[in-house]
Amino acid sequence: MKKIAVFTSGGDSPGMNACIRAVVRTAIFKGLEVYGIHRGYEGMIDGDIKRMHSYSVSNIVQRGGTILKSARSEKFKTPEGRKKAFDNLKSHGIEGLVAIGGDGTFTGAKIFHEEFGIPVIGCPGTIDNDIYGTDYTIGFDTAVNTALEAIDKIRDTAAAHDRIFFIEVMGRDAGFLAVESGIGGGAEFVMVPETATDLDAVVKSLKNLRKTKTSSIIVVAEGDDEGNAEEIMAKVKSKIKDDSKEFKVTTLGHIQRGGNPTARDRVLASRCGMAAVDGLLQGNFACMAGVMNQAVVYTSFADCIGKTKPLIEDHLKLIDILSI
Amino acid sequence: MKKIAVFTSGGDSPGMNACIRAVVRTAIFKGLEVYGIHRGYEGMIDGDIKRMHSYSVSNIVQRGGTILKSARSEKFKTPEGRKKAFDNLKSHGIEGLVAIGGDGTFTGAKIFHEEFGIPVIGCPGTIDNDIYGTDYTIGFDTAVNTALEAIDKIRDTAAAHDRIFFIEVMGRDAGFLAVESGIGGGAEFVMVPETATDLDAVVKSLKNLRKTKTSSIIVVAEGDDEGNAEEIMAKVKSKIKDDSKEFKVTTLGHIQRGGNPTARDRVLASRCGMAAVDGLLQGNFACMAGVMNQAVVYTSFADCIGKTKPLIEDHLKLIDILSI
Amino acid sequence: MKKIAVFTSGGDSPGMNACIRAVVRTAIFKGLEVYGIHRGYEGMIDGDIKRMHSYSVSNIVQRGGTILKSARSEKFKTPEGRKKAFDNLKSHGIEGLVAIGGDGTFTGAKIFHEEFGIPVIGCPGTIDNDIYGTDYTIGFDTAVNTALEAIDKIRDTAAAHDRIFFIEVMGRDAGFLAVESGIGGGAEFVMVPETATDLDAVVKSLKNLRKTKTSSIIVVAEGDDEGNAEEIMAKVKSKIKDDSKEFKVTTLGHIQRGGNPTARDRVLASRCGMAAVDGLLQGNFACMAGVMNQAVVYTSFADCIGKTKPLIEDHLKLIDILSI
Amino acid sequence: MKKIAVFTSGGDSPGMNACIRAVVRTAIFKGLEVYGIHRGYEGMIDGDIKRMHSYSVSNIVQRGGTILKSARSEKFKTPEGRKKAFDNLKSHGIEGLVAIGGDGTFTGAKIFHEEFGIPVIGCPGTIDNDIYGTDYTIGFDTAVNTALEAIDKIRDTAAAHDRIFFIEVMGRDAGFLAVESGIGGGAEFVMVPETATDLDAVVKSLKNLRKTKTSSIIVVAEGDDEGNAEEIMAKVKSKIKDDSKEFKVTTLGHIQRGGNPTARDRVLASRCGMAAVDGLLQGNFACMAGVMNQAVVYTSFADCIGKTKPLIEDHLKLIDILSI
Repeated sequence: MKKIAVFTSGGDSPGMNACIRAVVRTAIFKGLEVYGIHRGYEGMIDGDIKRMHSYSVSNIVQRGGTILKSARSEKFKTPEGRKKAFDNLKSHGIEGLVAIGGDGTFTGAKIFHEEFGIPVIGCPGTIDNDIYGTDYTIGFDTAVNTALEAIDKIRDTAAAHDRIFFIEVMGRDAGFLAVESGIGGGAEFVMVPETATDLDAVVKSLKNLRKTKTSSIIVVAEGDDEGNAEEIMAKVKSKIKDDSKEFKVTTLGHIQRGGNPTARDRVLASRCGMAAVDGLLQGNFACMAGVMNQAVVYTSFADCIGKTKPLIEDHLKLIDILSI
Repeated sequence: MKKIAVFTSGGDSPGMNACIRAVVRTAIFKGLEVYGIHRGYEGMIDGDIKRMHSYSVSNIVQRGGTILKSARSEKFKTPEGRKKAFDNLKSHGIEGLVAIGGDGTFTGAKIFHEEFGIPVIGCPGTIDNDIYGTDYTIGFDTAVNTALEAIDKIRDTAAAHDRIFFIEVMGRDAGFLAVESGIGGGAEFVMVPETATDLDAVVKSLKNLRKTKTSSIIVVAEGDDEGNAEEIMAKVKSKIKDDSKEFKVTTLGHIQRGGNPTARDRVLASRCGMAAVDGLLQGNFACMAGVMNQAVVYTSFADCIGKTKPLIEDHLKLIDILSI
Repeated sequence: MKKIAVFTSGGDSPGMNACIRAVVRTAIFKGLEVYGIHRGYEGMIDGDIKRMHSYSVSNIVQRGGTILKSARSEKFKTPEGRKKAFDNLKSHGIEGLVAIGGDGTFTGAKIFHEEFGIPVIGCPGTIDNDIYGTDYTIGFDTAVNTALEAIDKIRDTAAAHDRIFFIEVMGRDAGFLAVESGIGGGAEFVMVPETATDLDAVVKSLKNLRKTKTSSIIVVAEGDDEGNAEEIMAKVKSKIKDDSKEFKVTTLGHIQRGGNPTARDRVLASRCGMAAVDGLLQGNFACMAGVMNQAVVYTSFADCIGKTKPLIEDHLKLIDILSI
Repeated sequence: MKKIAVFTSGGDSPGMNACIRAVVRTAIFKGLEVYGIHRGYEGMIDGDIKRMHSYSVSNIVQRGGTILKSARSEKFKTPEGRKKAFDNLKSHGIEGLVAIGGDGTFTGAKIFHEEFGIPVIGCPGTIDNDIYGTDYTIGFDTAVNTALEAIDKIRDTAAAHDRIFFIEVMGRDAGFLAVESGIGGGAEFVMVPETATDLDAVVKSLKNLRKTKTSSIIVVAEGDDEGNAEEIMAKVKSKIKDDSKEFKVTTLGHIQRGGNPTARDRVLASRCGMAAVDGLLQGNFACMAGVMNQAVVYTSFADCIGKTKPLIEDHLKLIDILSI
């Protein structure tokens, strides 16, 4: 293998740039030529591919977003699109790919590998942490801290006015972001898709809590089974029959995707990027380079996509105990 | 004057604690006894009044929210409520008041002073900066920086995906927060209540901009004449007839009210708090202690409430020029 | 076991408060009475012990420092001091202890347990991460991020002036803080006590690097074998025979000990605190509750103190590769 | 005037990039061609001058440092150096200059204007705030907030250990940074060059304070008449004859120069940059564009350099009152 390319795809996450940097510099360190594909699969089809050098990734380790840009591609879902993408890679002499993204990215990469045999390896780039095969995904730690800082700020105003805040965080179908920002933020309740949300129990506890606490924070994962934060607040209000002015909703939204990556995300991203290049050179294809139990592991795309990573049991216990 | 009391009222803002601290310590420094009234006018009516000491305000200069809590009071709008409040003050021997809040707070204070002759002086505590008689209000600088950090984060993801973001910031009927966070955040457009928003012009510019820029940030003040960010995005989308997936809305919400106050807010709050006590001792009643042109000024409540503080002309020019 | 006490000892670290909170609330949740001992072993000897309730730990999860205060105690190193400490615990009916701190704290706890048989369990609270038996210590992640933010800021000014900065970070005899902040900060070199620092190699690389890079960041662990940052800079300058004005030193100092804990530290601290109480109730004494490979583990004080936790091999590789 | 150039010189400060952006875009908006001179006067002599476009300053409003880099130039202090610099400007057809920097920068600009008659206008870029003719300099607000965040962090550890911290902040011969970060950080004492530091009085107060407060923060301006923080701590320790282990020094150093600029600095920088171009077009030469009392003012270089901006009297009072 002499030439490889790297791209980012799907929703962006903080640390993607640190990962790109590690891929580029590890590749050069190992004597490879390296290319950057802009706007993910879309740019692969459009031939938006450029040579990268060591200096191409200077001064980006600390930046959010992705210098290679990201996009969702409908065309890549068609055989014609993928054929065109492969032809573009071939014309550049690219023999291996590093795909940074989430399960949509890996699904595309898996098919692409199966169809054309091109060596491809993934790095887990998503704030949702919903990828099997790595303890944490790149961007998750930054997103949790962003959510936490928002919760800290809202607690100031909640306490000043004796209010109950429903704060909606991202995470798609997974509750990782909600659980960790909820524990860290000292939330009274955390509602996640992985467990059935019992609103009657919440209402009962809330009535009890209000005897001693005058303000409360409820963190709602966007994928919760009882709906989004707005809907859940409406349900709670109708059940609790309390003065409604004290109930407020804040949906954190896209601020959770941006920002300078935390140390943890930069280190994880760097490590995954280095491992991806190592993996390509060692012949580990159609798999993702992640970090589990402090060590690099390669997990097949099939497992990354197909298996579900469970929440940490202790974390759920902590929420119950710490809100007393 | 031997005994005074301090309270916070209306929406809380970062720096209120620094202001309380300055009032308490200046009062003690000048030989006064000082009391804290909890939950604003509501607590004044309920008799929720406690003696404060120098140590009561230790380690709060850096905290958001208000240790005295805040509330809106319907009872204080009635003569009976105000009578009860006055009786409570009298029974504690309180001869002067410092009211930290916005125009609602000052409106109440003005009536209270007129009815009972009690000396009262205000400090401008609101994130909206919509108070005449002070260049900046306590909490505004922190809120602008919070909005700005959010805009910086969103710009990362906007750039990664070539998106157009409509970001709604607070400010009630004033555009200060939108203008300063818009200039600071490098926004392409800023929509404020003080000027007529011309959506056709925006759409035209946006089409032009898209030739060279692939992502754009549009800051919308919550009081804009064309509606909130969600409504404005819908209007723009229908006018521009562009692929809609690239248009996104983020409403920053209550994170703008919280957080550790900035240096500017802590210094301003400290200065206003000191000036309020000085003002009471000098016989400046029914007015607000603010800072204009680097100097303390006292402005009558009538003017604070009745007069409108205009946006800075240069700031509006900057937005037009800098977005090219 | 009906009554337990918790204390913090040695250097403080961000997340200690979150840990105290978890100990207190878990204890109450499990039906125990819980006491707080102020100023560590010193307060244990002085009898500075107070009952704690659920509300005693409200609103502290996000605060740096320790509400129980910390101190180093010479008296506890004497048999008389420890006897007095034990008598104070007995007079309060305290039957178990949770000690939050580093190896000095655990050394004291081990002796105390051996002498008086009192059940005691530790939680790893130190920014240095130099404790065997836990992947990370409470406070480490916050300290790394604080160091990283400082490095990011210094990089701005280093780049503006084409300078070479030697930044000294804490970590005592361990290089964890230097390594992770160095990788995260994109440092050109990281010097740690665990590996022999070869200044001639650094000087050679630095000369090479200067052909393409005009500024460089060198992170120095305070315990490095070649001396502190000031000394190392002097040695490099004398070897490199370059214009000296471009070489600068910044010693980050005590800012690394403070600040609001990160999400990771709050979650880790909460988990260790819960596990400590669980451990006491299960009869796990003279050991520390840590988290390894995502699971709670109890490690004997003897191992925590006696064994050395190595740096992660991959991290050292990353530094070499990423600085090209 | 058809072609102008912009450069940064002297110590860098956060907001310089926002100022460059405003100069470039205002110039283009007004129909001018605009050039960037790299590394200040040094680059002017070396002919390091490049055309700038609107996109040259995209995505820099939020970055610390300066994309044009800065340097100190010995050559520009000679007539030969300045002649060469002028010839380089002439050969590019550059008819006007915007110089962003502090008093060293303006001293050079003044001589250059006197010798060659070239129109030149300054923008106040320095974290020290020691420039007459503007209420605040570009970078000061960011530096104060950086110092303040450091003080907040140190207060955590100071309080945990009952310590007395001497924190040295920058500011050259001026105490602005020390005063505002001291008020904002709730410092017990602030020592500045503008007033005689009375160490005996400090020691007396410190002894009194220690009866009620167990930790103290003392902010020392680097230019204080009693020496730097290390020296002052030694003097206080020898006078107070107290257990010396509790006294600590932290010198904040170069972190104060970097970091993303605050909202206030970005807005001020943008405004000064726009005003500088307006000034050149209006024929205001050999002066600085600053903002006083909310309005743009042009002050001659002679006054900027020669006159001293005093500290705000109220701020000094606040320190005495608030530390009780």
